[in-house]
Amino acid sequence: MQPVSSVGIVAPQTAYFDAPLTLKSGVVLPHYDLVYETYGALNAARSNAILVCHALSGNHHVAGKYAEDDKNPGWWDNMVGPGKPIDTDRFFVIGLNNLGGCHGSTGPASIDPATGQPFGSRFPLVTVEDWVESQARLADRLGIAQFAAIMGGSLGGMQALHWSIHYPARVRHCLVIASAPKLTAQNIAFNDVARQAILTDPEFHGGDFYARNTRPRRGLRLARMLGHITYLSDDVMGTKFGRVLRSGVFNYGYDVEFEIESYLRYQGDKFAEHFDANTYLLMTKALDYFDPTHHHAQPSLAAALAPATADFLVLSFTSDWRFAPERSREIVKALLDNARRVSYAEITSGHGHDAFLMPDAHYHAVMRAYMERVST
Amino acid sequence: MQPVSSVGIVAPQTAYFDAPLTLKSGVVLPHYDLVYETYGALNAARSNAILVCHALSGNHHVAGKYAEDDKNPGWWDNMVGPGKPIDTDRFFVIGLNNLGGCHGSTGPASIDPATGQPFGSRFPLVTVEDWVESQARLADRLGIAQFAAIMGGSLGGMQALHWSIHYPARVRHCLVIASAPKLTAQNIAFNDVARQAILTDPEFHGGDFYARNTRPRRGLRLARMLGHITYLSDDVMGTKFGRVLRSGVFNYGYDVEFEIESYLRYQGDKFAEHFDANTYLLMTKALDYFDPTHHHAQPSLAAALAPATADFLVLSFTSDWRFAPERSREIVKALLDNARRVSYAEITSGHGHDAFLMPDAHYHAVMRAYMERVST
Repeated sequence: MQPVSSVGIVAPQTAYFDAPLTLKSGVVLPHYDLVYETYGALNAARSNAILVCHALSGNHHVAGKYAEDDKNPGWWDNMVGPGKPIDTDRFFVIGLNNLGGCHGSTGPASIDPATGQPFGSRFPLVTVEDWVESQARLADRLGIAQFAAIMGGSLGGMQALHWSIHYPARVRHCLVIASAPKLTAQNIAFNDVARQAILTDPEFHGGDFYARNTRPRRGLRLARMLGHITYLSDDVMGTKFGRVLRSGVFNYGYDVEFEIESYLRYQGDKFAEHFDANTYLLMTKALDYFDPTHHHAQPSLAAALAPATADFLVLSFTSDWRFAPERSREIVKALLDNARRVSYAEITSGHGHDAFLMPDAHYHAVMRAYMERVST
Repeated sequence: MQPVSSVGIVAPQTAYFDAPLTLKSGVVLPHYDLVYETYGALNAARSNAILVCHALSGNHHVAGKYAEDDKNPGWWDNMVGPGKPIDTDRFFVIGLNNLGGCHGSTGPASIDPATGQPFGSRFPLVTVEDWVESQARLADRLGIAQFAAIMGGSLGGMQALHWSIHYPARVRHCLVIASAPKLTAQNIAFNDVARQAILTDPEFHGGDFYARNTRPRRGLRLARMLGHITYLSDDVMGTKFGRVLRSGVFNYGYDVEFEIESYLRYQGDKFAEHFDANTYLLMTKALDYFDPTHHHAQPSLAAALAPATADFLVLSFTSDWRFAPERSREIVKALLDNARRVSYAEITSGHGHDAFLMPDAHYHAVMRAYMERVST
């Protein structure tokens, strides 16, 4: 391993777009902001740009810190930086907050200029396709005609996959990590329970809770608790928490007893305080809707991926049961059916779906080896 | 297959117990009712009795109907009846509603004689051990010193297992179906999300919602929706529902879109109308608490099962991911470590945990073959 360091202090930027964006739903967003961060320097040929797409609760803050004493670096800081697998000494890396998000890009909590109030229930549903379109506009703004690589984990991988299909000439390498070509019924089912928890929370007020100075904390908390179960493997839960009791004895009541309960409730409470419920809802819908075969007469993934010309790295993690390795192999198979260049690795990890965020030596070595052959 | 028929019209009975029952929690129930049904006839030697223990949302109505035009026979009617695998021509079968239930046995919705109001939050938590104790008293009442067999699926299997340990002389055969020796952290996590959905529902009122003429429907609905995901396999969800859209197109809103959403919400709504929230809570706690090794210095399942002298049939289903076949094999291994007679079958089924309730030919053939060698 080479010595690594951080990208250091970073600051988000905001790009305002006044060209209307017609969403897949048919709704037109007349104008919007996209918040983004960049790390490293764009080279003279503008050929070393990398786009990192975020997952369900991620954002533009991929790497670095906002202050020297900032205890929470970007969500992929272990992967992106000088000397790291995504080496900012070579690449110009862009992270953005997707449209509909709650970290600065225009979303349900943003003020609707037409009313002077937060959009709330009037914010339209956005899809992976809409995100890719808005990301392409940001790339245009930054003068990037073609990315060296576009990548993401989970929902982020779906965005990278759609880029490769929709803008093949703009993507040289596509990295799809811990992802799936589309959700299964079980995936959708989990999302729907999470959504119902939020939608039926009396504090949700049909999505217009902002003006009432409240938020559907109970629903969002349940959604996050449930999400966490699907992000972790049964094994890692067993190893970390098992059946350990907080007080060592049964209390015969409904307060926290098992350590796993304490962990989940803490994660749920924390999330409910800072994440926007409408954003959570629309992110899960974007997941549900994504299906490259949806508009094809024949639901063949190979046919749907036929336009893609990028080189691919597809990665999965053995204990990921949210998007199991089988799901990644569907993508690999479809790409091979089209005679595309694909590298695939199934990383042995006990961390479940969350593994794509973890600093695993094998995972990082594969990423590093792949990125070293990506020309700038 | 032999010709089969129903046990016909049945009626529940109620046994009142006025001997105080000291629960594992230390709380004493001064008196209580147990509702039960019986099918077939007890022989002169009183040696042909079978106890069927129910799972999370089950009850005493195991087989038969309450009226000729009753469309909903008992929950195991396909298994129990004349000529069926549990043959009521040979056996005297007992089903009961467990203590804390909501189908007639004393539970949270019952009137507390001390106050004239429903117990609500004052109803104590009950455990698998408490249930076995109350079931033993019912057996005493019916003059059954020893059961030909005690059996159950899921949580019911845990009761059968505890009977075999705690009252070895009273159980000749123990059938543990789609069960586990104890919950994993992931199992507990799912239960806790379900409980939190109920406990944080504003209509729950700390468990004392009866007097307010309301019920925590939203919480109970979420709990049931989540439960259903864990009862079904990913495969059967995919086969039955897949990504099929109710209206054929995306609606870009939060109403039902996918068939799986429709199914889950329907199941949740139905359950929320008739099941008691306090019962749901305590049943999940009984699941969490069950652990035969809990009171042992060494957490060895073999040591915990050492007192058991019954013959065992342990059954699991390939696609059951709530209590996977591995969990059943832990029980088999522990019994074999004690040189007990164990038959084990892993039934190939796509129906997930729910498979134990389904009329599968292989499953029923194994049950029939086993039960044919159980002497009366």
